[in-house]
Amino acid sequence: MVAIGIDIGGTSIKGAAVNKEGLIIDTFSFMVNQGNSSDETISTLCKELNKFITKIKNKNKDIIGIGIGCAGAINSALGIVDYSNNLGWDNVPIKEMVEKATGFKVRITNDANAATIGEAKFGAGKEYSSLVLLTLGTGVGGGVIINHQLFEGNEGKGTELGHTVINFDGEMCTCGRRGCLEAYASATALIRNTKRAMETDPTSLMWSLVDGDLNKVDGRVAFDARRAGDTTASKVVNDYIFYLGEGILNLCNIFRPDAIILSGGIANEGKYLLDLLEEYCQTNHYGYTGASKTKIDKAILGYNAGMIGAAALFL
Amino acid sequence: MVAIGIDIGGTSIKGAAVNKEGLIIDTFSFMVNQGNSSDETISTLCKELNKFITKIKNKNKDIIGIGIGCAGAINSALGIVDYSNNLGWDNVPIKEMVEKATGFKVRITNDANAATIGEAKFGAGKEYSSLVLLTLGTGVGGGVIINHQLFEGNEGKGTELGHTVINFDGEMCTCGRRGCLEAYASATALIRNTKRAMETDPTSLMWSLVDGDLNKVDGRVAFDARRAGDTTASKVVNDYIFYLGEGILNLCNIFRPDAIILSGGIANEGKYLLDLLEEYCQTNHYGYTGASKTKIDKAILGYNAGMIGAAALFL
Repeated sequence: MVAIGIDIGGTSIKGAAVNKEGLIIDTFSFMVNQGNSSDETISTLCKELNKFITKIKNKNKDIIGIGIGCAGAINSALGIVDYSNNLGWDNVPIKEMVEKATGFKVRITNDANAATIGEAKFGAGKEYSSLVLLTLGTGVGGGVIINHQLFEGNEGKGTELGHTVINFDGEMCTCGRRGCLEAYASATALIRNTKRAMETDPTSLMWSLVDGDLNKVDGRVAFDARRAGDTTASKVVNDYIFYLGEGILNLCNIFRPDAIILSGGIANEGKYLLDLLEEYCQTNHYGYTGASKTKIDKAILGYNAGMIGAAALFL
Repeated sequence: MVAIGIDIGGTSIKGAAVNKEGLIIDTFSFMVNQGNSSDETISTLCKELNKFITKIKNKNKDIIGIGIGCAGAINSALGIVDYSNNLGWDNVPIKEMVEKATGFKVRITNDANAATIGEAKFGAGKEYSSLVLLTLGTGVGGGVIINHQLFEGNEGKGTELGHTVINFDGEMCTCGRRGCLEAYASATALIRNTKRAMETDPTSLMWSLVDGDLNKVDGRVAFDARRAGDTTASKVVNDYIFYLGEGILNLCNIFRPDAIILSGGIANEGKYLLDLLEEYCQTNHYGYTGASKTKIDKAILGYNAGMIGAAALFL
């Protein structure tokens, strides 16, 4: 018995058949044609999906449902993609469309929530009854598990944790407000701050790590240069730890979860990042006294978390 | 049939017998002697409580339990006051002590949570299935209701909404961090900013409202002077709306509740405050498009919310 989990992003759509243990037994994927309408893209998805369903059935596996994690603002109760900037979708009744084309029951949630369910049920969070997932990538996404259940707010529109202001007069955020966590703790923000720091210090080791080309700066440069002893890089990383640490302390004070799980590109810094964050949060806490500590940990399912979590809407 | 609700604050302890409809049928109260130990204060409470219980029983009312809302960090699962700065209490097993002295079952939560339950079940929030309560008083307290249930985080240590940073390099907060919502949206913060503004403008109408005495400044002065057309006061209030508005937008993006309910001294500004906040949030939103709006409203139970909510732990 398996569920199918689908991860719809701006550039590609990936699907997997996932068993009760959260293991992927088969996958499919295709690139999204940026010029296509939502009808065209979902029509392609349904064709690929029906081929995949036949393949899974031929393996004598029962399919119990199709879960979808989709980038954008999702109304999970109604099964509608209200709006997705990355996909250029507006008010798309995807649940109904996929149910009609495949004959299977469909459930949807947003992509960050799907990844959260995946990590909570089968990944880094499976020992915890409550957790917050933060994805540190192009943006900052969030997902919240309370008592083993996804919490997503009314109409699936809550837990936009990247869009909580930590510096109200600060950097512009993509959402139109100033000073959001996303504008400080995303890979995009770290890259921006790395470039700014390099421009103030022509002698920084960071320049040699990118062959003197600012366009080659990614989220690893400052971390790598810090490890090699570069002072300017060290300040960039310390600032990043401060921003992310303040965001994490806010989430501790709001949710007081068992754990905060970090995923996305920056989380690949692994123990080095976690140790710095742990030290920051230990020395700048509120409410730790007399309360169990919130553990800070790294996601382990990588890019499969979304598919596995989408499937887990039925598992 | 009634439950008894007790509200333990730093200066007084109040109790009420509350019926199934959330109506208070009788009350008692006494002042806390600041020099007393927790043992002495709870001993006094139990004596007063037993007198009150006899009085209620003489009215032929069955008592189903005793709920306690207490200032401080509460472990609701264990029934312990871990720490209360206002009371000078440390690791006090109040549930066990009151159960032993009265023979009734006791449940506890913190005072902001008790007020939240009161407003949610019998007050401004009874039409909503999810809400966030913000108390704007000496500090900023918070409470969260999800699906008609109190959410309080692990060990009752979550929803410290006043201690979420909105300006990471900003004003010092009582909790030791910088830039918490409490350091901007509490009555204490409003009074601080009112005084600062007055010191920069000797001609402000605010001076005449306090007879030229800065010590007389309270949370109403800037609002009153703004209504009378004072420009400096207007800026103080606009700034306050900005701070509180940013905090409210954060809570919308985190919880996307049906409503955010404001209580405490500043909330007494009523419609005037709510209209300004509504306007701010409408023009500075994230995620409102395609999502139902979160209503901003005023609490209605006043100082009884804590007692009624504590009783509601059994109702």
